[in-house]
Amino acid sequence: MNQIKIFSPATVANVACGFDVLGFCLNEIGDEMCIKKTYKKGIFIVKIEGFDLPIEAELNVAGVSALAMYKTLDLDYGFEIEIYKNIKPGSGIGSSAASAVGSVFGINELLDRPFNKTQLVEFAIKGEALASKCEHADNLAPAIFGGFTLVKSMSPLEILQIPVPKNLYATIIHPQIEIKTAEARAILPNQVNLQDAIEQWSNFGSLIHGLHTSDYQLIKRSLHDSIVEPHRSKLIPNYNDVKTAAIKAGALGTGISGSGPSIFSLCEGLESANNVKDAIKNIYSKTGIKFDIYVSKINTEGIKILN
Amino acid sequence: MNQIKIFSPATVANVACGFDVLGFCLNEIGDEMCIKKTYKKGIFIVKIEGFDLPIEAELNVAGVSALAMYKTLDLDYGFEIEIYKNIKPGSGIGSSAASAVGSVFGINELLDRPFNKTQLVEFAIKGEALASKCEHADNLAPAIFGGFTLVKSMSPLEILQIPVPKNLYATIIHPQIEIKTAEARAILPNQVNLQDAIEQWSNFGSLIHGLHTSDYQLIKRSLHDSIVEPHRSKLIPNYNDVKTAAIKAGALGTGISGSGPSIFSLCEGLESANNVKDAIKNIYSKTGIKFDIYVSKINTEGIKILN
Repeated sequence: MNQIKIFSPATVANVACGFDVLGFCLNEIGDEMCIKKTYKKGIFIVKIEGFDLPIEAELNVAGVSALAMYKTLDLDYGFEIEIYKNIKPGSGIGSSAASAVGSVFGINELLDRPFNKTQLVEFAIKGEALASKCEHADNLAPAIFGGFTLVKSMSPLEILQIPVPKNLYATIIHPQIEIKTAEARAILPNQVNLQDAIEQWSNFGSLIHGLHTSDYQLIKRSLHDSIVEPHRSKLIPNYNDVKTAAIKAGALGTGISGSGPSIFSLCEGLESANNVKDAIKNIYSKTGIKFDIYVSKINTEGIKILN
Repeated sequence: MNQIKIFSPATVANVACGFDVLGFCLNEIGDEMCIKKTYKKGIFIVKIEGFDLPIEAELNVAGVSALAMYKTLDLDYGFEIEIYKNIKPGSGIGSSAASAVGSVFGINELLDRPFNKTQLVEFAIKGEALASKCEHADNLAPAIFGGFTLVKSMSPLEILQIPVPKNLYATIIHPQIEIKTAEARAILPNQVNLQDAIEQWSNFGSLIHGLHTSDYQLIKRSLHDSIVEPHRSKLIPNYNDVKTAAIKAGALGTGISGSGPSIFSLCEGLESANNVKDAIKNIYSKTGIKFDIYVSKINTEGIKILN
């Protein structure tokens, strides 16, 4: 195999009480990438469609992660990468993560899988760091493993795959506004109340239990975040209205995807997810802010080869 | 049935990263209680052996929880309670909880179970509050349900039963010193670092996942508490030595049981638990402080009828 076409999915990180550790993978939105072996040694981004991103491999997320992997190998050939981006950079649904994992997944396939999934995430972390200025894996892990992932630790990197209830769907709205990562970080408190923290880990443990037992009502009772959401939600117009409408329409829970501006809702069943979509659309149509909205089953497969 | 004899087990609360919400039930140590119907209306403590505790029902933990239940019923008879205490009050392994659940469990059995387990915990909370000056259920829940329990919320009371890996044992040392509850509470910080809190919920979610998947090594990597242990461990002589020796001897993790002074270790297998026991004994024998030490399989049954 000398070339491969892949689908690299969007992902949701910072899932409510699982802030900074829990993420999940989406089905309906993602980038496509083509990766080809080439006689010339090195990593070359040869085409980018969709959004204006640097073509130099050293300045491109997909290039940096591919280079991190490539440098560990002693090959007498290289790889060309074409990127067809659908996930808007800065949308909060893992745009840079999709690029970062796409190149390393594709090259690994072309090489007959010398690296395991955790190692792929390790390489992708280097690319992701270019975009987000810090090393984290909360979008990379679900993109590579699919389903729900818990990044238990970064050093050594340990990723847990949490079971996905069969009928779990997500509704995602991406308001087309820009949130500066620096601002989203600066707004977080350094200190939190012990009682709030206890409530958060109680909810997070319960959420993990609910995912294991497919207990949708428990998932609903656990999808809360009293620590980060009150701060970051201020950066997203009409956040509280969206959340109230989504819950009223049947969402199990609603939260900020990544550091925003996208907002996710988790729902039991496609019908419920569509109802939630309509309710959120109804709110956001009145704001004058452009938005995209998606309904997606939780993607349990993760990144994949196309055709 | 006019009388019943029961075994009311000791329990461990505040299980490391599950501070304030996760507890488990022990097998080898517990109180025995006899409960009899009597023609006289009311709740009567008629005998207490083992430790010097108030015999007046209104001043006794078992009496208060029994009265809380009894008041909801309209019976033309009452109950006499005999308490044979083995769990020393103030030991940190749920002495008052054993008394509080024993009376309500026994009376419920004599009445052919009008109340479910969660309701029994609700009544027992009233008794427990007499001893600990606040309402909590983290020892009551494992005593009633057995195994590991997560108290998801107090109002409404919601208790989750978490699966118990088959080969999980606990080693418990009870150093015979007194820790004042007020002091153990006052030593807790009101505010904690966000980063520490994130690590705690990451570990707690991972622990719940590890219990579901019987992944002993993950349980080991998750049994940490960087929030409460650094403060409360100062109140327990030689705590760090005990912990170091237990981990070195093979314990999956070691922490403070309840608010101390007891220290629990979780172990994979009886042999490992006995090795840990020997290692801890070796440390504590040199301190001059009297202690009891136990090895117990995790009790998945909880409180039970004897003969």
